[in-house]
Amino acid sequence: MTDRNPEEALRELGITLPLVTEDPKYTNWRASSAGLIHISGQLPYRDGVLPLTGTVGAGVDEETARGLMRIATINALAVASHATGGIQRLRIVQMLAFVASAPDFDGQSNVADAGSELLVQVLGERGRHARTAIGVAALPRTSPVEVQLVVEVAQ
Amino acid sequence: MTDRNPEEALRELGITLPLVTEDPKYTNWRASSAGLIHISGQLPYRDGVLPLTGTVGAGVDEETARGLMRIATINALAVASHATGGIQRLRIVQMLAFVASAPDFDGQSNVADAGSELLVQVLGERGRHARTAIGVAALPRTSPVEVQLVVEVAQ
Amino acid sequence: MTDRNPEEALRELGITLPLVTEDPKYTNWRASSAGLIHISGQLPYRDGVLPLTGTVGAGVDEETARGLMRIATINALAVASHATGGIQRLRIVQMLAFVASAPDFDGQSNVADAGSELLVQVLGERGRHARTAIGVAALPRTSPVEVQLVVEVAQ
Repeated sequence: MTDRNPEEALRELGITLPLVTEDPKYTNWRASSAGLIHISGQLPYRDGVLPLTGTVGAGVDEETARGLMRIATINALAVASHATGGIQRLRIVQMLAFVASAPDFDGQSNVADAGSELLVQVLGERGRHARTAIGVAALPRTSPVEVQLVVEVAQ
Repeated sequence: MTDRNPEEALRELGITLPLVTEDPKYTNWRASSAGLIHISGQLPYRDGVLPLTGTVGAGVDEETARGLMRIATINALAVASHATGGIQRLRIVQMLAFVASAPDFDGQSNVADAGSELLVQVLGERGRHARTAIGVAALPRTSPVEVQLVVEVAQ
Repeated sequence: MTDRNPEEALRELGITLPLVTEDPKYTNWRASSAGLIHISGQLPYRDGVLPLTGTVGAGVDEETARGLMRIATINALAVASHATGGIQRLRIVQMLAFVASAPDFDGQSNVADAGSELLVQVLGERGRHARTAIGVAALPRTSPVEVQLVVEVAQ
């Protein structure tokens, strides 16, 4: 897999990265002197609104959850792009994907895949990452999904 | 936001950081050659006792959980201060906040805020951090909250 | 605690590290320029099969979960060893241990201990790590446990 032009990829996919705003209490991201940048957990907000709330496997189905994971990952990508001074130099290191899950729902990997696929579609090889997907009891604002990234500036 | 004197801040807040002890099997923290220091997940122990057990949104209310999150964060701050050779040089990079949650509890961000606020009260700008808050099924010892930090020594 | 010969330790313990294969969508690990290597969440697969599925504290007991956590940690060790070019130079930084938990199960630390003990048995002082153990609603493929590591090459 080779690197690709991320801005071209975003255009082809019809994706406009949302504007990043700041919270007074905590930050959307935090850079360390080691060079790793931690991105805060992102919910699938679209224009300030959660498109859907609930639990996957009980009310929210897997395909819908995949769509929400894609939106949450676009939001995380927007913060990461902002944090690294532009998407051209962005490299993803790790993704932690959370899925609010009914006890018998076992498709967390499939839901997380929607986020992983988006990152590779936009960033190519630089978008590949270590990943952990887990099912949790509940997420802030009853969001069905949340995603956290660790990223760096490509050398 | 500017840095402040953390020891003065602790005094003003009436906080005494607890003594840090070691576990033979794993460590309370682990420094890497990259300079990042990972702090082990901390429960809201006070003098070796969990003040309360249970699930937030079912038995434990949000305000009580905020108080416990503050204690857990003080414990994490004690370990981080110990690990970095003194609170004066401590900078917080990331917080992962866990709230043992009833399925319909959606205030994980409010509970995590109690920890974030404490870090900023004590450390000022150096206390700000990337953050992810999630609701989990259960925590060790049936603790209602747990907090994990990644920190570094300020340059 | 001193470092020990990890390959000798593996032989004494009768452990053969499994072969590591790659997934096209995401990676089993990702190295950063900071030197930290993030290992993707590992399930207790053995020869491509999950020995058991279910929830700890409801169907799966603590001792069984400890055995599964040991297997998942062996799998993570295999990836980490592969990623760092050999187990001789491997140093563990952090473990995040997930236990699919019934709401009243509070032994997540005991389950995670099985993984921590294995790392120290094989790697000695280099195997010690910061750790967070949490109980989650569900894991991919209904696995009872999952483990994620951050590692580095010992200096």
